[in-house]
Formats: sequence, C-alpha cells, structure tokens
Amino acid sequence: MPEFMDVHRNMSGLTKEALQAAHDADLAIQSDEDVVFKTAWADPDSGVVYCLSEAPSADAVKRIHERAGHPADEIHPVPLKV
Amino acid sequence: MPEFMDVHRNMSGLTKEALQAAHDADLAIQSDEDVVFKTAWADPDSGVVYCLSEAPSADAVKRIHERAGHPADEIHPVPLKV
Repeated sequence: MPEFMDVHRNMSGLTKEALQAAHDADLAIQSDEDVVFKTAWADPDSGVVYCLSEAPSADAVKRIHERAGHPADEIHPVPLKV
Repeated sequence: MPEFMDVHRNMSGLTKEALQAAHDADLAIQSDEDVVFKTAWADPDSGVVYCLSEAPSADAVKRIHERAGHPADEIHPVPLKV
C-alpha cells in the first residue's frame, strides 16, 4: 500500500491530548477508506503536524481527515523512503 | 533526545539512489553533532523530502544538512507524537 505524508498547519498550542483525540478520530473511521494512519508528529509552537499513513490514494487520506474535522493542508505520496 | 522533522523542497526528479546518497552523506558526519537521522521520505513529483531525526537541537540538524550539501528549508522540533 502506498505511503503518504500529510501536513496540517495553524495548530499552534496543540496539546498531547488534543493530538491524541484528533488521531483517534481518524482511526475510528479510517477503515471506511482502507487508510491506516501510522504516526503523527506535532510542533505546538509553530503549529505544524505531520501525519504518516498508508492508503490507496491521497484522496482517501483527504476524505478521512475532512470527515474527522481536521482537513490537511498538503498531502504527498512518499514512494521513496530510506 | 528530542525529535525533529525537517523539510527539503525543490527536489523534483529525485531518485531512490540520490535520496540514499544524500542520506548516507548525512549519516557519515551526523555523529559530529550527536544527530541521528532515522527516516527520510520523498515525493519526487512535488520535490518534497521529510527527514526525521533525533538531535540535541534544530541547529545541529541544520549544520549537518548544510555540510552534507542539502540545506533544509524548514526544521521543526516535534515534541508530540502519537
């Protein structure tokens, strides 16, 4: 399954609990689109969040994040990994 | 050790071999700054590369990437992870 990295901005002040709640909201519905969210990393100071997933398409990732209430600002396939 | 996510842009057309060579150049000198580069993900179409590392500071990551010949466009501490 292809991997994707998506980016959320303007999340300054995000707490660990809020990040976990957002991630849990994705996990609760991800199977509707065959998406598997793996890891999310956040910088509460600059307000940027990076999410790594496996998914059939970027649109599938986009739809899950939108339905979970936190649309992504960028979604990139990352076919290369070292 | 804190984790950092850094971003490189304008790397369109990047190949797996070029990504590996860039990563190897980082690994060769990372111990000078106590940095440990963990994973790099790339999208050759949009030319964006994400690098996850452990390091004592963002400046340490910055210096290693600069000396290896591929300065980062953004470096963010990512103290939150789920």
